[in-house]
Amino acid sequence: MALSPSPSLLVVGTLALDSIETPEIRAKEVLGGSASYFAMAASLLGPVRLVGVVGEDFPVAHRELLASRPIDLGGLVSAKGGKTFRWSGRYHADMNTRDTLDTELNVIAGFRPVLPDGFRDSPFVYLANDSPSTQISTLEQARARRFVMLDTMNYWIEHEKAALFDVLNRVDGVIINDEEARLLTGEKNLISAGTRVLELGPRVVVVKKGEHGAFLFSHFVRHALPAYPIEDVVDPTGAGDSFAGGFMGFLARRGTVSLANLKRAMAYGTVLASFAVEAVSLERLATLTREEVETRLDDFLQFMSP
Amino acid sequence: MALSPSPSLLVVGTLALDSIETPEIRAKEVLGGSASYFAMAASLLGPVRLVGVVGEDFPVAHRELLASRPIDLGGLVSAKGGKTFRWSGRYHADMNTRDTLDTELNVIAGFRPVLPDGFRDSPFVYLANDSPSTQISTLEQARARRFVMLDTMNYWIEHEKAALFDVLNRVDGVIINDEEARLLTGEKNLISAGTRVLELGPRVVVVKKGEHGAFLFSHFVRHALPAYPIEDVVDPTGAGDSFAGGFMGFLARRGTVSLANLKRAMAYGTVLASFAVEAVSLERLATLTREEVETRLDDFLQFMSP
Repeated sequence: MALSPSPSLLVVGTLALDSIETPEIRAKEVLGGSASYFAMAASLLGPVRLVGVVGEDFPVAHRELLASRPIDLGGLVSAKGGKTFRWSGRYHADMNTRDTLDTELNVIAGFRPVLPDGFRDSPFVYLANDSPSTQISTLEQARARRFVMLDTMNYWIEHEKAALFDVLNRVDGVIINDEEARLLTGEKNLISAGTRVLELGPRVVVVKKGEHGAFLFSHFVRHALPAYPIEDVVDPTGAGDSFAGGFMGFLARRGTVSLANLKRAMAYGTVLASFAVEAVSLERLATLTREEVETRLDDFLQFMSP
Repeated sequence: MALSPSPSLLVVGTLALDSIETPEIRAKEVLGGSASYFAMAASLLGPVRLVGVVGEDFPVAHRELLASRPIDLGGLVSAKGGKTFRWSGRYHADMNTRDTLDTELNVIAGFRPVLPDGFRDSPFVYLANDSPSTQISTLEQARARRFVMLDTMNYWIEHEKAALFDVLNRVDGVIINDEEARLLTGEKNLISAGTRVLELGPRVVVVKKGEHGAFLFSHFVRHALPAYPIEDVVDPTGAGDSFAGGFMGFLARRGTVSLANLKRAMAYGTVLASFAVEAVSLERLATLTREEVETRLDDFLQFMSP
């Protein structure tokens, strides 16, 4: 019996040129962005459809890197005369906290994603961090959506809470960090915060805690796991979106969102994030193979199993 | 075939009268101390021998509570005319950090523990936080020691590093928190720090991370687990010593320190700590039953299993 092809996974997010400083390294205008990390991570597990926008200055090599994987760039808009979104940040010595030094929105200012006709039947959809109104507009275009997950950030929680609550009530899952979960609910205790996010609508809530691992909340099961131990964290940028890529990539591959699949998706997310931080930008994800992913997954399951 | 009795577990540590403030509660001169928490937690899993000192003002009810469990108080000294050690602290809103408001050493100042003859054959020994020289003196009296684990704190790392390195080289295990592991090794990355502590001599290193769980380092295996999820943390005092009590209590019960037993000991430590923080002082440990421990252990294994 032939296996059916993986249900399609769609990501809508940013492609960026990042400038990064850590105590160890400096990198100028390297490939970044939520959609880049998500798609490269998820593409290790199955095909991905990408929607985003870049400027005319977006290097061909970056596009070629994405295209070298099963990533359909049919939704990647190149804005004529526009400049690619740029972000620069500096990580503190603990590598867990960072300051944003500069943000140049450029082509993403006012960009309203339009799904190509061929992308509208995607059952699995990841809405990377963006304004809630843009997320709703995108969601409505994904007519065959079966499992939609979104990311958000402090800015939208503080400035567009009503719109965010609206979109939260219309998605299946949310993937946020611990600080955002606390801000969103006003609960200091993380367990209370995660439980309260569930009451806002999503049936799956993933709270990322960086080096402390991640927590899954649903109405039927709670699950927590540690991070995969990495001694030499080179660049934490994109770890969250790489986690999301591993998580959604695995669910799309399996095609169903069972409790067992959610638990295994958490482990894949952890493993993909652990690779992402081992080198600057997407350098490690670029060389990563499916076999390396599966080997580290086995190590990780051993490491976390009681 | 009859089961052999559990190998004996010895704890040497403090008994205190704690005054505690949190955003929710205030408690004045309630039972505390490393040996109290450790012994009450470990006694759920097997017999414990306790060595420590109190003043004449130590309430009879506290002694009776300890004696109501399989805790041998043959090494508990009551110093004539002395006052019991007192500690007071205030927890911040996050319940993870605290300020010490006052410490009155009283009878523990200059106390050198002497093991009763009947305690010197204890194979499992826990040396709670104390000066390294006192820990060495105690260790040398435990002539039949097979597995000795110690706790320490920032003060000894900063002021008696050479003596601490000496005792670390003579014990089997160390159980410290993440901040102490970093201070002890100068490594910012926790995985590097834990690995470096192993090089100081102990073959087992447990790093406690509070609400983020705990990490086990050995030369043969690494293991991390999340904390058991508790929404209503009432009083975090003694969580670390309760963890140690569950950890050592399980190892002493099993009698051997295999890798499988170490992993399971981490789970028991986590479960005992989770009960300890549910009420002020030792109130929850006082009512706790073995059956409740096993039920929560089953829940926890389910919660953390991939």
